[in-house]
Amino acid sequence: MSKRVNRRIVLAARPQGDPRPGDFEVVERPVPVPARGQVLLRNVLVSLDPYNRIIMGNANSDQPALDIGDLVFGFTIAVVEASEHPAFAVGDHVASTSGWQEYAVSDGSDLRPVDPRSAPLTANLGILGMTGLTAWVGLTRIVTPKPGGTLVVTAAAGAVGSAATQIGKLRGLRVVGVAGGPEKSRHLLEDLGVDAAVDHRAPDFPEQLARAVPDGIDTVYENVGAPMVAALLPHLNPGARLAVGGVMAQITRTGGFEGPDRLPDLMRAVLYKDLTVRGFSVPDHVDAYPEFLAEVAPAVASGEARYAEHVVEGLETIPFAFQDMFHGRVTGKMIARIG
Amino acid sequence: MSKRVNRRIVLAARPQGDPRPGDFEVVERPVPVPARGQVLLRNVLVSLDPYNRIIMGNANSDQPALDIGDLVFGFTIAVVEASEHPAFAVGDHVASTSGWQEYAVSDGSDLRPVDPRSAPLTANLGILGMTGLTAWVGLTRIVTPKPGGTLVVTAAAGAVGSAATQIGKLRGLRVVGVAGGPEKSRHLLEDLGVDAAVDHRAPDFPEQLARAVPDGIDTVYENVGAPMVAALLPHLNPGARLAVGGVMAQITRTGGFEGPDRLPDLMRAVLYKDLTVRGFSVPDHVDAYPEFLAEVAPAVASGEARYAEHVVEGLETIPFAFQDMFHGRVTGKMIARIG
Repeated sequence: MSKRVNRRIVLAARPQGDPRPGDFEVVERPVPVPARGQVLLRNVLVSLDPYNRIIMGNANSDQPALDIGDLVFGFTIAVVEASEHPAFAVGDHVASTSGWQEYAVSDGSDLRPVDPRSAPLTANLGILGMTGLTAWVGLTRIVTPKPGGTLVVTAAAGAVGSAATQIGKLRGLRVVGVAGGPEKSRHLLEDLGVDAAVDHRAPDFPEQLARAVPDGIDTVYENVGAPMVAALLPHLNPGARLAVGGVMAQITRTGGFEGPDRLPDLMRAVLYKDLTVRGFSVPDHVDAYPEFLAEVAPAVASGEARYAEHVVEGLETIPFAFQDMFHGRVTGKMIARIG
Repeated sequence: MSKRVNRRIVLAARPQGDPRPGDFEVVERPVPVPARGQVLLRNVLVSLDPYNRIIMGNANSDQPALDIGDLVFGFTIAVVEASEHPAFAVGDHVASTSGWQEYAVSDGSDLRPVDPRSAPLTANLGILGMTGLTAWVGLTRIVTPKPGGTLVVTAAAGAVGSAATQIGKLRGLRVVGVAGGPEKSRHLLEDLGVDAAVDHRAPDFPEQLARAVPDGIDTVYENVGAPMVAALLPHLNPGARLAVGGVMAQITRTGGFEGPDRLPDLMRAVLYKDLTVRGFSVPDHVDAYPEFLAEVAPAVASGEARYAEHVVEGLETIPFAFQDMFHGRVTGKMIARIG
């Protein structure tokens, strides 16, 4: 087994702005051998997330960054190929954190069993995985919207955003999705069933937004960052709450931002409207996974909660697919099938 | 009694930026006569607050604004001169909302009895009044700092800010006060007993701030607005919380703010540091008054909680004193003694 090759994607250059395929390199290593208490995993699905870009580092990030030559960390669905661990058997499917590579060993501490019969395997990376958990934590632990209120989800056609729209619907909220381009508006309305869709790239974006929230906005699930927050501010109701789960429009930006300065507008609104703006990161909330799954998995099984996926084939496509994700060309959860 | 004159300060012109004495006019009206169920109040102390400026309106405010010719609404301490109300007797001292005038009638619903023997009368407008309650609500209901953490209070030599420093000390926090000028730093250290003082007007403000928060910042009581928030951001610890009780530096600003745009910096910090930024207004929390008073009044009586006041004499001085307050020339709670 150790003579087999493990292909892995490592960081070849620190991305300047948006990631480019040339920032990555596929290297070959021997397939590792599990020690006692470990399992050998063969990754079959790899999750592509904005988080991957954040950990690649730039001037804007306070997160520890990957070093050049490091494997790109990330979520996968894997099959247990060999087990020296009593809790895992050969053939088991697991969710893992083994990253952009074909094989990995694990001591089991990062693994979560998944049942390939209860939902499509891909859903375990998307609406039933960390993606869905992120949206659920934002709308459960970070803000707690009241039924009947208006929820605006930004980057609503993206992986976390689309999960947030569905959780909002399950909670009885009026859900307004904001995304870029008419096709995404169609997707939000027809495929995801939101109550209103707003195209932030349209010339009449301000008017679309105003029409979509006639009673103002009570809750925001925010994925985008400053430009979207500034656009939503005038429509926020007193006591509105913003769960900040992403800053997609800012992740790849380096250096300063041109004026006018919109921070005073935010601070004024925070005070005069009693706003709460609250950030979070889902690794602090993995204990919520069972509670999340108990609510969302049945809704996925029944079709009440919908989701979209964008699945590409092959490890070598990951750098190209990853670039696409930052150009707004992807709808739903982005996954690479590699085995 | 009805032939006596009631002098009242009304809005003569909507202030453009900082308020100026010419924005106000003293008009004379007959002293009102209380009907059944009302009391006649003679105001003896008038509270001057940033809130008074906010309600005068400008492009930046979402609050309902006073109209030209309206009495300036505000807090006072008054003596009951005549009573047709069973709960109030002639000679009683009360806190009221009767505004910048000598006499007023009230049905009692806005009145709170004050005991002139338990604390100086002025303290009932300051650390034991709405001013102190504002600081207390911010550090109790809006954020809940843990003992031992570092609290930064901005505009710390002002009325609400100085109350926040004292409540922070009562809660066992390390309290850092930020104010403008060396005299205010001295006041914070020597009179109010903060752990460190930072002069935001000093050329070495960034270094002073860095030295004052060697373990970072866990909690901010924020009174100032965007410039101060931007300066504090790099020092905020993960999970830090900001209670936004004022935007003093922005109240009188009209129009936009020059770049660079600092909203992206805030949104990034909110996400990457799991920040909570939360505004509030104290009228929503007047039910907290008894609990607040139970904690703070004994500390004021014992001298453990300290406070400063700036008392001017006479109704006609109010427009000038009010202007001074916006030029940073006032330390502590500003009060006009008018009777």
